[in-house]
Amino acid sequence: MPIIKSLLDADFYKFTMGQLVFHRYANVPVEYAFINRTKKVHIPGFVDEGEIRAELNYVRTLRFAKSELHYLRGTNEYQDRMFKEDYLEFLAGLQLPEYNLEKTDGQYKLEFAGKWSEAIYWETIALSIVNELYYSHFMRKLSRFERDKVRAEGVRRLAEKIKILKRRPDITFTDFGTRRRFSREWQDYVVRTLNEELPPAQFRGTSNTYLAMKYSLLPMGTKAHEEEMALSGIFHGSDKEIRASHNKDLQDWWDEYGWGLSIALTDTFGTDFFFRDMTARQANEWKGLRQDSGDPFIFTDKAILFYERWGVDPKTKLIVYSDGLDVDLMARIADYRKGEIQKTFGWGTNLTNDLGFEALSLVVKLMKSNGNGTVKLSDNLAKALGKPEDVERFKRIFGYAGTYEKECKY
Amino acid sequence: MPIIKSLLDADFYKFTMGQLVFHRYANVPVEYAFINRTKKVHIPGFVDEGEIRAELNYVRTLRFAKSELHYLRGTNEYQDRMFKEDYLEFLAGLQLPEYNLEKTDGQYKLEFAGKWSEAIYWETIALSIVNELYYSHFMRKLSRFERDKVRAEGVRRLAEKIKILKRRPDITFTDFGTRRRFSREWQDYVVRTLNEELPPAQFRGTSNTYLAMKYSLLPMGTKAHEEEMALSGIFHGSDKEIRASHNKDLQDWWDEYGWGLSIALTDTFGTDFFFRDMTARQANEWKGLRQDSGDPFIFTDKAILFYERWGVDPKTKLIVYSDGLDVDLMARIADYRKGEIQKTFGWGTNLTNDLGFEALSLVVKLMKSNGNGTVKLSDNLAKALGKPEDVERFKRIFGYAGTYEKECKY
Repeated sequence: MPIIKSLLDADFYKFTMGQLVFHRYANVPVEYAFINRTKKVHIPGFVDEGEIRAELNYVRTLRFAKSELHYLRGTNEYQDRMFKEDYLEFLAGLQLPEYNLEKTDGQYKLEFAGKWSEAIYWETIALSIVNELYYSHFMRKLSRFERDKVRAEGVRRLAEKIKILKRRPDITFTDFGTRRRFSREWQDYVVRTLNEELPPAQFRGTSNTYLAMKYSLLPMGTKAHEEEMALSGIFHGSDKEIRASHNKDLQDWWDEYGWGLSIALTDTFGTDFFFRDMTARQANEWKGLRQDSGDPFIFTDKAILFYERWGVDPKTKLIVYSDGLDVDLMARIADYRKGEIQKTFGWGTNLTNDLGFEALSLVVKLMKSNGNGTVKLSDNLAKALGKPEDVERFKRIFGYAGTYEKECKY
Repeated sequence: MPIIKSLLDADFYKFTMGQLVFHRYANVPVEYAFINRTKKVHIPGFVDEGEIRAELNYVRTLRFAKSELHYLRGTNEYQDRMFKEDYLEFLAGLQLPEYNLEKTDGQYKLEFAGKWSEAIYWETIALSIVNELYYSHFMRKLSRFERDKVRAEGVRRLAEKIKILKRRPDITFTDFGTRRRFSREWQDYVVRTLNEELPPAQFRGTSNTYLAMKYSLLPMGTKAHEEEMALSGIFHGSDKEIRASHNKDLQDWWDEYGWGLSIALTDTFGTDFFFRDMTARQANEWKGLRQDSGDPFIFTDKAILFYERWGVDPKTKLIVYSDGLDVDLMARIADYRKGEIQKTFGWGTNLTNDLGFEALSLVVKLMKSNGNGTVKLSDNLAKALGKPEDVERFKRIFGYAGTYEKECKY
């Protein structure tokens, strides 16, 4: 039984970004790499190379089914017919490009190189695969009843979350847990349960496109760091050109989707730069911001200040928090400066992988774009990426002065 | 989906007693009645009369399947071919007799009258049905996830039991939970799990004949109070004749099954009488005793004293405790006068109905035998049965001086 049975079993942002890339940067050569940020865990000790290969090879045999493309064609929650025919035709013929898998230093080296428009789809798929294989290693060693116990503990923890959330209807959220899920089946169970137990105004949807289709939920997602990182490689050159690539990406995005998907990711090169770079017009037009690293309370302060500076009422704007959330943190964020700005949550690891096992912090990140090494600075230096000399250059270019560094819980 | 799908889905003692009755007292007219000892719960408020009728009517359409009779024919754990051909032929043609169901006083009046050899099979079947309908009333009102939570809590509690029992291999036990089970499916799950998680020397088997067949477990059971109660009605007459009927039953049993099933039930007319009535020869020959009411520690003292008085080494004898057990009580009993007499446990309600709902104390008891009102005295007057004048007479006949009375937890 393969883990990934459908190419829609990926985060929705892969399609929203995927169309933009297809329309503008289809043939840009890129390289992605799998990174295990939980250094103490040596995945090759738990997951067999052959198992990973079998799963990745199976994904390469998958094609988008007609009804899956019909679903994307019919998606109208953000913009009528947001996916255009040329893009859907492209998807109809898509096979995911080859991968490179090697064992090195007690970790796996797993890379995806190719045209950006094709390689982009591997990210969440590869993460879902490695995660599920990792946990299935432990589950296979348990007796049937011990597996039932794990599941019962998962149900208990999910029930505890739901109980608290029912008392806190002000906390609205979306499932962002595809990449870190305990298993495909468990994410399915969690999403189905939230959909049954909580009102739609509170459980707003899922980032998992397949599950959104299966349960008639809102598919959620906009864009990831990779877009701004890739554009810095495409519009590479002087410091000024690199700096300008950031706003170019915001403009591309607005041109592609307009207001519907206008949630800006703020921390690729540090939020201080972001707040300097986003224009008054953009601040006015865009729906809101996504906070994905650093201190969420300080970010809230900065965002409110930012909008006020541009004469925008923060109450009309939305922050999507998506960094290392649990119920307690969501409650504290919701209570902070309550009513001064709208808030919602993209809840990942702790939602779909909370059955008693420790979660891993796995990512697939863009390493190269158009022949240039890419850089992510983030508001947490533990999440920074790039060759040291590139990181130093980008810090200078983007005026990055942050020193915050905290090990990723997830 | 009917609750009872097989006539084997009953306690094994119905067949061991059933054969004795068929061979000796087949046509004795008897009457059984359903009794809810948990007075505060008015079952008609939860269980629809039509539902009970549908289930009971379905049972009346059931016949023993060929392979079920083959299973009984092949049973050789206690005595080679313990079930004889005449009895198996009788079972092959058996339809359960009619029932009478009425609503009275906020409780159901449910009675089974007929020839003893036919009416005997209703007891555990009717109890399983009413119990499951009662809990399904609550389960139906829950959401799918809330039902999952109940199940998860059941798994958690079962895991807790197993964890303690793994540390206490000296506690050996049998599932006696058919009559009070939360549901057929849950008893099946519990039995299957115990069979997988514990060694066979610790989880010794199940009283449920169908599950014993399904999981290749030892079917467990000997005899119930009804036998001694019925014989007091059959050999009714002078006080002396009634008193003599008790030992007559022990003799019948020995004649039918010999040593294999020689566990005597001690409390029908009070254990003090029992210990006066069992002869030295019987004390020597019989395997042991079953304790089903009163204080299990005092009973242990009395049993050891009894054997010693007849010059029998108590270490060679076995007590089967079966009254209101949980892990803690089993551990305390096991620790009490450890090594002085063998002990094992018949664990019912708390094993198969521990998911967070309160258990009911439901029984189906013999009310009349051969035209005479029957009496059970028990070592706990809360479990006594019979018309007040009959109870008084039997107390006198059997020299019953007990005053212990404690509400039945189960």
